[in-house]
Order: sequence, then structure tokens, then C-alpha cells
Amino acid sequence: MRSLRVIGIGTGNPEHLTLQAVRALAEVDVVFALDKGAETADLLALRRSICAAHIAKPHRFVALEDPARDRRPADYGGTVEAWHQARADRLEEAIRDQLGAGEVGAILVWGDPSLYDSTLRVLERIRAAGRLDLAWTVIPGITSVQALTAAHAILLNRIGADVLVTTGRNLAAQGLTADSTVVMLDGDPSFDQFDPDLTIYWGAYLGSPDEILISGRLGTVAPEIRRRRTEARARHGWIMDTYLLRRP
Amino acid sequence: MRSLRVIGIGTGNPEHLTLQAVRALAEVDVVFALDKGAETADLLALRRSICAAHIAKPHRFVALEDPARDRRPADYGGTVEAWHQARADRLEEAIRDQLGAGEVGAILVWGDPSLYDSTLRVLERIRAAGRLDLAWTVIPGITSVQALTAAHAILLNRIGADVLVTTGRNLAAQGLTADSTVVMLDGDPSFDQFDPDLTIYWGAYLGSPDEILISGRLGTVAPEIRRRRTEARARHGWIMDTYLLRRP
Repeated sequence: MRSLRVIGIGTGNPEHLTLQAVRALAEVDVVFALDKGAETADLLALRRSICAAHIAKPHRFVALEDPARDRRPADYGGTVEAWHQARADRLEEAIRDQLGAGEVGAILVWGDPSLYDSTLRVLERIRAAGRLDLAWTVIPGITSVQALTAAHAILLNRIGADVLVTTGRNLAAQGLTADSTVVMLDGDPSFDQFDPDLTIYWGAYLGSPDEILISGRLGTVAPEIRRRRTEARARHGWIMDTYLLRRP
Repeated sequence: MRSLRVIGIGTGNPEHLTLQAVRALAEVDVVFALDKGAETADLLALRRSICAAHIAKPHRFVALEDPARDRRPADYGGTVEAWHQARADRLEEAIRDQLGAGEVGAILVWGDPSLYDSTLRVLERIRAAGRLDLAWTVIPGITSVQALTAAHAILLNRIGADVLVTTGRNLAAQGLTADSTVVMLDGDPSFDQFDPDLTIYWGAYLGSPDEILISGRLGTVAPEIRRRRTEARARHGWIMDTYLLRRP
């Protein structure tokens, strides 16, 4: 039996780690990192520094190159399925070759492993393939949703009201349906379709020294958000951002 | 200027504290706790033990009795408003009397301060009243949503799909509208109204030694959830539970 810990590490602030995550990391022998290549070298560096700071014993850091992925596929579901399978194959091979019996492996996940992350699905695929005897536990982490609301010092919900957590893709297709809507994974926000009197709370690189926060009436601040977003993405080579839209 | 830190402490596992929360706690002079009386004495005790473990200097722990609240009011919004005002009055008085200039106060919040918690609204009321010069920062915490999904080792969302976070009250009024629905604050779950082929992931006392987890086909496990819920509530005098409903 090989043992893995799937650890949510928060959104880029090394202090988002929980004490539970710190304790889980201390006993790790091998860290597996699936990565998107040179453009996210600083994200990889942050994970390496977390491991260096918290893993108490000699450990190995195995960086796996992420399979290529079509970001604007015609068949979204099918493309994601194929991408998960390619990830599963790569990770299974790495676990088989790098993680000895009796050793503990870890996968560090941005935010929390439950929210728009593929790690748990990929592990389920490896288990379903039946070639590796693999068990894992999950350590929760601060999501970008909590990091966003904390940075703006706001509540996610209005009194007694619902919150919808959605993606840029779904928002574009369905429009705004909830009182408060959190939008994740929106690579190209098109705010123009919405009521300019909505309130937006936007944040990028949440928790990190590069954090950018903008909030206000959507119609007023949308141009600034788009400008800052484009500038920051060009400067860093990548961006992770999230926003909350609230009805007036 | 008086300074407060609103700190999310997770769901009852002392190891849900983040390193950021630990650092924020270390410098605290006064902790304010709003409490619901004897029935939640163990929750108060847990907060006291967190303070004892992490506050580095001599500190004061100020427990405020929570104002009484009608749990099944005819006018929900108005009742909550009045209850928030009563809380604000009590907290303002305590801050004025107990927190000296230059001292740092803290309020420890279960889960995360952004989700179905009144602390930030109560502080806004105190600020709006204009009698105290008060500033605060928010430290994000693990919500019961993350604790639930981590304990069940599941994802919150299906691939590319939405998640609705709602309350028992809204669920009863609106029915199930999303692919994945997280229900919080449901004091009296009535599962009978839903498709028995839904999957439910339920958890109580998440993260604590008393954690209870049940999952499966709703029609099959609902009676067991109700039974365990009633038993546990009677034994502890209180219950905090959360569940995720997913369409088949």
C-alpha cells in the first residue's frame, strides 16, 4: 500500500498553511508536483520553499510536466476527461517509480483540493485502473474565495442569502442567477454583459506580495480591472484571479 | 484607534488554524467571545484552549453573553437585523471598556468570517454608529464546506459545474436548483422533499474527535442521518452539521 496526502496550501501566502498541513508535511518523503511549464516557475518555486520550510526529513521533489491542454475546446467535457487521463498516466508512473512501499507521498494543491482542482479525480482514475494499491487523505486549505473575502474584509453572503460559485464559462452561458456569485477560472472576463450597478470585489495573486484588489460599482471599475489584469498577466506570465459579483 | 483581528479558526480542529492565524494571535491582548450560553460551553472551552496555546503574552478573555434570538421568527430579516444590533451594542461596550488604546483585540470565528457569520456585519454597525475609532483585519479560515469535502475526500464541484451554497431555510423555500448544493444552518433537515436518488455527503462536528460522516444515496441513508443527528444533538447539547447534495 502506497500512501498519499493531498494538501491544500492556500492561495500563495505561505502562511495560509494550516497546522494540520504543517504536521502532514513534516512526515513526507516524496512531493509530486504537476506543473504547467516555465510560465509558472514562480509557483513551483513557492511549493519548493514550502517543502524546504516544513518537511522535517530528507525528501524528494518530483516535478511532472503537465500534459498539454486545449484551453478553448469545442468539446469541453471530453477534452477535460482526456486531459485528466493523461495526468493520471503521468502521475501513476511517477508514484510507481518514485514512491517506495512504506513511504509517504504528498501533492500540494493551490487553494483547497475540493474546488476546481483535478487532483482527486486523477487519483480516482489511478485507483480505478487497479494497477497501484494507493490510499490518500485530504487536508483542507484556504480557497481563493476565503482569501478574496478576507482581503476585502467582506462577507460572501448577504443575510440569509445564497452564494453561487461558478466558472467564467458557465457565467457567460447562464448569466447571473444568484444574489452573490463567485467567479473562478475566468480567463477572459467580459463584464459588459452585466448590470453596471452590480458591485464587484476582484482580487489577483491573493495572499501574495503581488496581491491586487479592486472593488466598486462594476460599470465604474471594470475598465481598471481589465487594464490591471492585462498588465499583471504580461508582467508575471500568468495570473490567478477571482471575483465576487453582488446584486445592487 | 483601536485595532481588532477577526480570525477564522476552522471548524473545531485546533489544527485548522493557519500559520497566519497563529501569528495574528501571538500579539493579541484581549479576546472577545460572543457566546450562546451553557449549551456551547465546550465551544467556548475550545477557543480558550486555542488562546492559551497560541497567545504569547498575558491576555484577557472576555466572554459576552449572546443576545437572545427568535430562531423561527415570522420576519426573518427584521429579526436578524435586531439581533445584530443587540450584538453590536454589547460588543461596542465591551471593546470600549476592555480594549485599551494601542492594544490589539481579537474575535475568533468558527469556520471563516465570510460565510454565514455575523461578526463583520456587527463591526460595520459599530463603525457606522461613529462612537468608537475602530479598525480591523480579517484572517481567512477553513470553512465547514472544506472540512466536509476533505473528510469525505471528495470534490465540491463536478467537472466545470457550479456549486450553490445555501441555507436550510432557502433550500426548503426554493428546492434544489444546482448540480451540487451545500446546505448550512439547517436545524431541521427535511430530506423527504428531494429525489431519493440524490447523493448526500453529510458531516457533523467536522474536524473534531466527535466527527460523524455519512454518505450515500439520499433515500437510503437519510433515516440514519436523522437518527444519528438527533442522538448526537441530545448528547452534546448542540450540533453543527453541513451537507452536500449532488444530482444523480
